[in-house]
Amino acid sequence: MTVAGYLAVDSGGSGLRVAVGVPGRAPSAQRETREPVRTGARGIDPADLMTRLVPLARELAARAGVDELGTAVIGAAGFATLGDALRAELPGALARELGVARAALAADAVTAYAGALGTRPGAVLAGGTGLIAIGTDLTAWRRADGWGHLLGDCGSGAWIGRAGLEAALRAHDGRDGGSGPLLRCAEERFGPVRGLPGLVYPRTDRPAVLASFAPLVAECAAHDPVAADILRAAARHMADSAAAVCPADGRPEVALTGGLSRMGDALMVPLREELARRLPHARQVLPEGDPLHGAVRIATELAAGRLTLPGEPAMLHVVAATVRDRTKPDGYRSPAPSPNRRAR
Amino acid sequence: MTVAGYLAVDSGGSGLRVAVGVPGRAPSAQRETREPVRTGARGIDPADLMTRLVPLARELAARAGVDELGTAVIGAAGFATLGDALRAELPGALARELGVARAALAADAVTAYAGALGTRPGAVLAGGTGLIAIGTDLTAWRRADGWGHLLGDCGSGAWIGRAGLEAALRAHDGRDGGSGPLLRCAEERFGPVRGLPGLVYPRTDRPAVLASFAPLVAECAAHDPVAADILRAAARHMADSAAAVCPADGRPEVALTGGLSRMGDALMVPLREELARRLPHARQVLPEGDPLHGAVRIATELAAGRLTLPGEPAMLHVVAATVRDRTKPDGYRSPAPSPNRRAR
Repeated sequence: MTVAGYLAVDSGGSGLRVAVGVPGRAPSAQRETREPVRTGARGIDPADLMTRLVPLARELAARAGVDELGTAVIGAAGFATLGDALRAELPGALARELGVARAALAADAVTAYAGALGTRPGAVLAGGTGLIAIGTDLTAWRRADGWGHLLGDCGSGAWIGRAGLEAALRAHDGRDGGSGPLLRCAEERFGPVRGLPGLVYPRTDRPAVLASFAPLVAECAAHDPVAADILRAAARHMADSAAAVCPADGRPEVALTGGLSRMGDALMVPLREELARRLPHARQVLPEGDPLHGAVRIATELAAGRLTLPGEPAMLHVVAATVRDRTKPDGYRSPAPSPNRRAR
Repeated sequence: MTVAGYLAVDSGGSGLRVAVGVPGRAPSAQRETREPVRTGARGIDPADLMTRLVPLARELAARAGVDELGTAVIGAAGFATLGDALRAELPGALARELGVARAALAADAVTAYAGALGTRPGAVLAGGTGLIAIGTDLTAWRRADGWGHLLGDCGSGAWIGRAGLEAALRAHDGRDGGSGPLLRCAEERFGPVRGLPGLVYPRTDRPAVLASFAPLVAECAAHDPVAADILRAAARHMADSAAAVCPADGRPEVALTGGLSRMGDALMVPLREELARRLPHARQVLPEGDPLHGAVRIATELAAGRLTLPGEPAMLHVVAATVRDRTKPDGYRSPAPSPNRRAR
């Protein structure tokens, strides 16, 4: 008897996470790589993704005792804006190289959602260095924020860290709104603050540098009202985003996922209060799992033909990945996509 | 009879402005270049500055009928943190190449101060894309903010523009704190907002891109309370910085200089109110002139041996630029600097 399995992928800024298993069960084999998929002029590069993915998928399938990867779900950071080439080429390539029959390509926000809440209606705050809110009533997706550290990501790790450093420098200058404790923390972490611009501006990972200060803001909050105010403001911003995407009716669930959920009570207590105030009809829950778990959840539903999350080209792109002609290596065509329809 | 003159320079991000004249009088000849002085591993490059400056200075001296450039004042953006090589080499080079006997090297904030208030005690807000406050009681300099668009520059053009774009995106997302008028302005200026991250993040002049939206925030403020609140908050931040550097006693003057002063009443009315509230003992004045005028003011005082602005290595570095040995081209030595002392 052939064992039919799934391939679940979470492609993010720090690399690929890949899992193989049998629908309805947790992954039997899992691995991750340390290098992110290349982004070029055409957006996320499908050939580069396949080059990294294929050997891993084959190895994991063998380890898991899976004969056929019938279903594949690929969640990718940047998919909404940089996913055109993936949508055009990945389903065909997955069919050709790995024999995939059904594929779903998803924004990482969607896999984060499915990882946290499965296929139930609600809102998920995905917060780490950045912050995006995603919600659904199971007929459409709504997104809020996720605009990056200069235009938004309000309440994110970069936002909290930046606000903490501003308060440190206000204390240094003798301006109002400064915090001596945050100034001491900043000097312990980064050295004399006169050197701070030189440590931040030349870097290409400026948001990550800012976010690296966020845990110290949380540590200070117990005894420093300025730090506590920063976290309270972050919680308000996060609740603004959750409220913009959460279904207005019924009993939706709301969850926080990502690195920000490890900031401790200094952020979690005001966040719970702000969410209760803004979304009294919603139930605050802990996330079931992470984005890779979300890809597994989607794969299981897709394999069973009962995926109830809404399809949308930029968010969750579901296709039957068929190979037109196995005899001509160059004759493969991407299957006709079925955007904006639920895959059932 | 020899006509002894001065050389005044304002070196900034958009190029060099150079003036030659006779002490006590406005410049007789003036020119500007469109290319900024190069900054390298050693900071602002003194050789590059001299290469650009010397032919201009000679041409202007000839035009102005000045036989001897006895006094030179060079105000340079970045001098406080990137001025080591200038301090070490420029006085000698000015003596050698242009016969300069007395030189002052200054941070652009100091020339902005002298341009606005001359040598009287007070506080100057220098605001454009960025924002720094500088003040003196004539015994020491105080600075506040000027930390750049991620760590501070609170109330600057970049700060106002960034806040305006955040409010536009809040409206787009349906988050609290959004402004429909600012969203319409942002789409007129930048196109559909989904493309905004792609227009901002890849640029190296991100602060200038953000600041380009500030005048539109000011335009909206007449009929949009969100835009008006942004400018009120900017005015509060500016007053925070002015209050941190303004002398606490006497009757200091306070002025705003730079591009931000052209934002109109939408910013100026709340700024005047905030300054009056925070610094009731200070007199709000219009600036006399710009940073090049400030360099001319300092040159005139220096030539007369009565410069009363405080010397400080990172702010206003005054030296007697002497040439040790005119017969040996390689034997020139920089004169011994006399930092931290007033030049009298």
